[in-house]
Amino acid sequence: MTAMMIVMERSCSPEAIQSVVDRLESTGCDIHISEGQDRTVIGAMGAGIDLEQLPWEAMEGVEQAVPVLKPFTFVSRDFQQEDTIVKVGDVPIGGNRFTAIAGPCAVESREQLFRTAELVIKAGATVLRGDAFKPRTSPYAFQGLAEAGLELLAAARDEFGVPFVAEVLDPRDVALVAGYADMLRVGTRNMSNYSLLAEVGKQPKPVQLKRGFTATIEDWLHAAETIYKEGNHVLVERGIRTFETASRNTLDITAVPVVQRLSHLPIMVDPSHSGGHQYLVAPLARAAVAVRSSGIMVDVHPSPDTALVDGSQALLPSDFAELMDTVRALAAAVDLEM
Amino acid sequence: MTAMMIVMERSCSPEAIQSVVDRLESTGCDIHISEGQDRTVIGAMGAGIDLEQLPWEAMEGVEQAVPVLKPFTFVSRDFQQEDTIVKVGDVPIGGNRFTAIAGPCAVESREQLFRTAELVIKAGATVLRGDAFKPRTSPYAFQGLAEAGLELLAAARDEFGVPFVAEVLDPRDVALVAGYADMLRVGTRNMSNYSLLAEVGKQPKPVQLKRGFTATIEDWLHAAETIYKEGNHVLVERGIRTFETASRNTLDITAVPVVQRLSHLPIMVDPSHSGGHQYLVAPLARAAVAVRSSGIMVDVHPSPDTALVDGSQALLPSDFAELMDTVRALAAAVDLEM
Amino acid sequence: MTAMMIVMERSCSPEAIQSVVDRLESTGCDIHISEGQDRTVIGAMGAGIDLEQLPWEAMEGVEQAVPVLKPFTFVSRDFQQEDTIVKVGDVPIGGNRFTAIAGPCAVESREQLFRTAELVIKAGATVLRGDAFKPRTSPYAFQGLAEAGLELLAAARDEFGVPFVAEVLDPRDVALVAGYADMLRVGTRNMSNYSLLAEVGKQPKPVQLKRGFTATIEDWLHAAETIYKEGNHVLVERGIRTFETASRNTLDITAVPVVQRLSHLPIMVDPSHSGGHQYLVAPLARAAVAVRSSGIMVDVHPSPDTALVDGSQALLPSDFAELMDTVRALAAAVDLEM
Amino acid sequence: MTAMMIVMERSCSPEAIQSVVDRLESTGCDIHISEGQDRTVIGAMGAGIDLEQLPWEAMEGVEQAVPVLKPFTFVSRDFQQEDTIVKVGDVPIGGNRFTAIAGPCAVESREQLFRTAELVIKAGATVLRGDAFKPRTSPYAFQGLAEAGLELLAAARDEFGVPFVAEVLDPRDVALVAGYADMLRVGTRNMSNYSLLAEVGKQPKPVQLKRGFTATIEDWLHAAETIYKEGNHVLVERGIRTFETASRNTLDITAVPVVQRLSHLPIMVDPSHSGGHQYLVAPLARAAVAVRSSGIMVDVHPSPDTALVDGSQALLPSDFAELMDTVRALAAAVDLEM
Repeated sequence: MTAMMIVMERSCSPEAIQSVVDRLESTGCDIHISEGQDRTVIGAMGAGIDLEQLPWEAMEGVEQAVPVLKPFTFVSRDFQQEDTIVKVGDVPIGGNRFTAIAGPCAVESREQLFRTAELVIKAGATVLRGDAFKPRTSPYAFQGLAEAGLELLAAARDEFGVPFVAEVLDPRDVALVAGYADMLRVGTRNMSNYSLLAEVGKQPKPVQLKRGFTATIEDWLHAAETIYKEGNHVLVERGIRTFETASRNTLDITAVPVVQRLSHLPIMVDPSHSGGHQYLVAPLARAAVAVRSSGIMVDVHPSPDTALVDGSQALLPSDFAELMDTVRALAAAVDLEM
Repeated sequence: MTAMMIVMERSCSPEAIQSVVDRLESTGCDIHISEGQDRTVIGAMGAGIDLEQLPWEAMEGVEQAVPVLKPFTFVSRDFQQEDTIVKVGDVPIGGNRFTAIAGPCAVESREQLFRTAELVIKAGATVLRGDAFKPRTSPYAFQGLAEAGLELLAAARDEFGVPFVAEVLDPRDVALVAGYADMLRVGTRNMSNYSLLAEVGKQPKPVQLKRGFTATIEDWLHAAETIYKEGNHVLVERGIRTFETASRNTLDITAVPVVQRLSHLPIMVDPSHSGGHQYLVAPLARAAVAVRSSGIMVDVHPSPDTALVDGSQALLPSDFAELMDTVRALAAAVDLEM
Repeated sequence: MTAMMIVMERSCSPEAIQSVVDRLESTGCDIHISEGQDRTVIGAMGAGIDLEQLPWEAMEGVEQAVPVLKPFTFVSRDFQQEDTIVKVGDVPIGGNRFTAIAGPCAVESREQLFRTAELVIKAGATVLRGDAFKPRTSPYAFQGLAEAGLELLAAARDEFGVPFVAEVLDPRDVALVAGYADMLRVGTRNMSNYSLLAEVGKQPKPVQLKRGFTATIEDWLHAAETIYKEGNHVLVERGIRTFETASRNTLDITAVPVVQRLSHLPIMVDPSHSGGHQYLVAPLARAAVAVRSSGIMVDVHPSPDTALVDGSQALLPSDFAELMDTVRALAAAVDLEM
Repeated sequence: MTAMMIVMERSCSPEAIQSVVDRLESTGCDIHISEGQDRTVIGAMGAGIDLEQLPWEAMEGVEQAVPVLKPFTFVSRDFQQEDTIVKVGDVPIGGNRFTAIAGPCAVESREQLFRTAELVIKAGATVLRGDAFKPRTSPYAFQGLAEAGLELLAAARDEFGVPFVAEVLDPRDVALVAGYADMLRVGTRNMSNYSLLAEVGKQPKPVQLKRGFTATIEDWLHAAETIYKEGNHVLVERGIRTFETASRNTLDITAVPVVQRLSHLPIMVDPSHSGGHQYLVAPLARAAVAVRSSGIMVDVHPSPDTALVDGSQALLPSDFAELMDTVRALAAAVDLEM
């Protein structure tokens, strides 16, 4: 369902109005014409077309065209009222559950990964995270262990019995990552990478779609719509770019209830990459519970001061365990199961 | 304490460097000169001066001047380690307490105010809100009851035994509002109105300083520093302007732990004006508890659909009571007293 | 003229629709109801009321309310087709003219002011700038010479025969500043200070209204509407706050043609405060000519490295003279008179 | 060259300071230690390492770590003083030249392309644009003609004797596009797609790197550094996402002089995609000349009201010809060759 209001210029001719009406009729929309004292406004509503893409302002007599309803369909609450539950391995995400995903930002070694995995699972995490490919803004930074990292993650899954999620950066790596991981992640820098979205949409594993740090909620749901065909996905809010520089990004905690109203997909929160500082992780994770999101994804590292990637924001395993105690108390206060 | 790093151009002359050093020495700073292979960098640290204001880039040979420490002093944790407790009437705000302020956005009538006050106090609010002057962006909108509104608020205080906070918009009204209210509020549009800040800084009542919706945390603490002389104040996060338009503003929940690290002043959250929609108030209020802010300030109206101001975001008294039950459970989970 | 589209929920009752229609009819709007297969959308248009202020979302069955036309009237091109020409002393601003205003950011001394005035006028400036009151974000910075500064400006006017503009910060100073200056300026931090806007709107001198650095164009035209009653005003674009920090603010050069389409008021550009760096002033001033704005306002200081305020962005008089040569050539290329 | 200032906490131990110094020494940096009355600040400068990536805040005693110089090297003016001239086919871009690239946003048909090409070349464009792959935010929109589109562009090059630029969206298409086009474009949504950057960096054709609409100038130069290895590239400013919604994006015209100061690469301006409205194209294109950018890239379509993509912002060929007359006059006024 999309709807537009086409506001005509005050002085426009009846022919210009008719021409807009003809164009709309050719798309099969419902049309209603409102003739005010001052101006004519034409309303249009239709399904399966994207009225916003038409070159409204190039048409004679059109002052502005205002979209009213947004052109995503399958991910919307209109399409499906009940909450989607996404299965990652055997772990359900969504509905009335709060799920903790944790692990190192990047897989650095077997020892680092296994040590972290053991401790985060003991603390209550039910899905492991760890990346084998890293999208680094600096060409001089660590780029990840690639397939060797995926093998370590699969070994950790066997050892500890929990599924894992790993990021995929390149459409050519989708099959490789999907061959190992239980859930694929599209990261914030790739949310608008439509080649990558097309590939992850073609394989059967669930996808964790992080919000682009400069994407509106509408852009994000558009991207989710693109990959929806093959199944269900998990959204992850991770902060947006604003004028504030005291934190790395501004966690848009409001996005959780907004998305829950617009869409049936689960939405989780990444408190680690959003704030970018260790001392911010626990408060933001607690906020994620309070707004009743579907869970958190937290960077944990056994020795953050030697981490190759993002050490400034990683929690120690002991800090994560302490956080999880509070998370459980908060979840109970807002009737979420863990 | 302020500190700057002055990066000199690669090719700059020794005289240019000496000239910058002389200028810095005249301010009484500590100075350290780092001569790299490539460039000279001059560090400066000092108290009681604002090094950032000097015309660095107009000086010969200066490539850039980077502020390192921020020029607020009295509101900083460096100046005072322990949390400030602000007394509003007899009600303490700050420290390990979570305080709920509630009431109508604008005072419209005795009946509207008293009905709301009775119900919000019963639900657990300990400070009443209600404005007599409204800063409206549209010249055609309701501007408030002025002194008649303050009289009604004072009558409600007598009736129900709770203090109240009211906004002041104009430096000429400060004495008037301070004559009635237990705490004055400087609203988001006036956070950078230095004439108003100067006046509220001269009177003895505590001040609630809302964050400008386009102010950085640093700007905000600057403004707090300006009014600090006469006593202690309460900061209120209320959302910032970003590219996201699904909510009125983006609540910067991260600002709570950031401010708590930088400053000893209490920081509360306004979940009503931030989101701008009724359905967002409860989730954002819950997040405010989870991050361990000092409290919430909530718009409540007995019949939001007839409200003269901001009805789209006001809670019904019954919704507020339900919210407060959850707030108490969350506060217990994070060891806050109520 | 305002117009709204009220989108009703899919499942809403006929009574809810009727109730919204009744509320709209009570305001005297034109109403049109569009019943799509999926939802009902109600369009409303009316003059002299601000439909956006009604508590739409508190009404049963309303999903969202989208404003279509904006609630400013008198400053719009709909109200007046031809360009407004504002007279500052004898100098016209607006229409097909490009005007240069120049002078020191702050008046520091007679010598500084007169030396600058002589040189900028020789270079082609026809209005002098210089402030006697400065809105400083730091409480430790120079606050201006106050009335002594205004006296110096008036003396410079007598000496050099050009009118001057000066900023007013406080509603209590409006009469004072208006007693000396030929045009008053409301600065970027005060664009939403409605007490100040109300006072400057009551006196007869023209007002230069700078865009708030976090104001949308719509907010800005609202503010202009507020002061419109008493006469005509000049808008000044001066950059907005964005995520980019390489310049102080991001000059919104697009705002010039946007405002020229929406409003009949002249719009000038401040290339000095926008970029915040000396080397950016000339390119931004040239862009202001190319988009056919009504002029520029430039900070000039005889010795920027000793300036008390904003020295990092002030031009030397010789640089300003060189800029003006290029400005004249560009103005000729886009058919602007100087 | 990178430089950092590490600000230590007030109460930190001498061991913590030594530990930071040891870590820095292990990287081979120059180090200088400033011991103020209040705190110790450690400055570090070095080449070939990215100090910003170290986990500063995970180290004991570190309060904050502030980057001072930015970690790009080869694209900086420090590395190469003189302007880079990029050859697109036989057409030079950069230095003292102003170049106009024009053509349809998307190639739709031979007739549409050839008709447009003929007219824009006649009007003064020296490089043709036209895309065969389109990154569409909506899954329901036209996606481009793919290789058939590239064949049409190559045929137009043969017919009219001008080189062409075309966008590449997918790392797997780089060889295909590079086999036809004279310059490849990385679009705004892909500026941070490091897989794509890696591929375009490996082939010998020049690359036009558009600024991500949410990228800082520093991010953008980082991306340019990534692809620099294989040769020279052209940057294109095309507007950033801000809170302003009156235009599609906010053209950051200030970025032109900022980039020219930091980098030797040519920077052009896209006035079509930035504003998103036909009436904004000419003013923004004129501003691009006035700031002395290296050129413009303009969408032109023979019948914008039937365009399949972005018709709302396309110029008619006759409007483009008129714009080019003004562009030539402005270029002469600022001493640019055309």
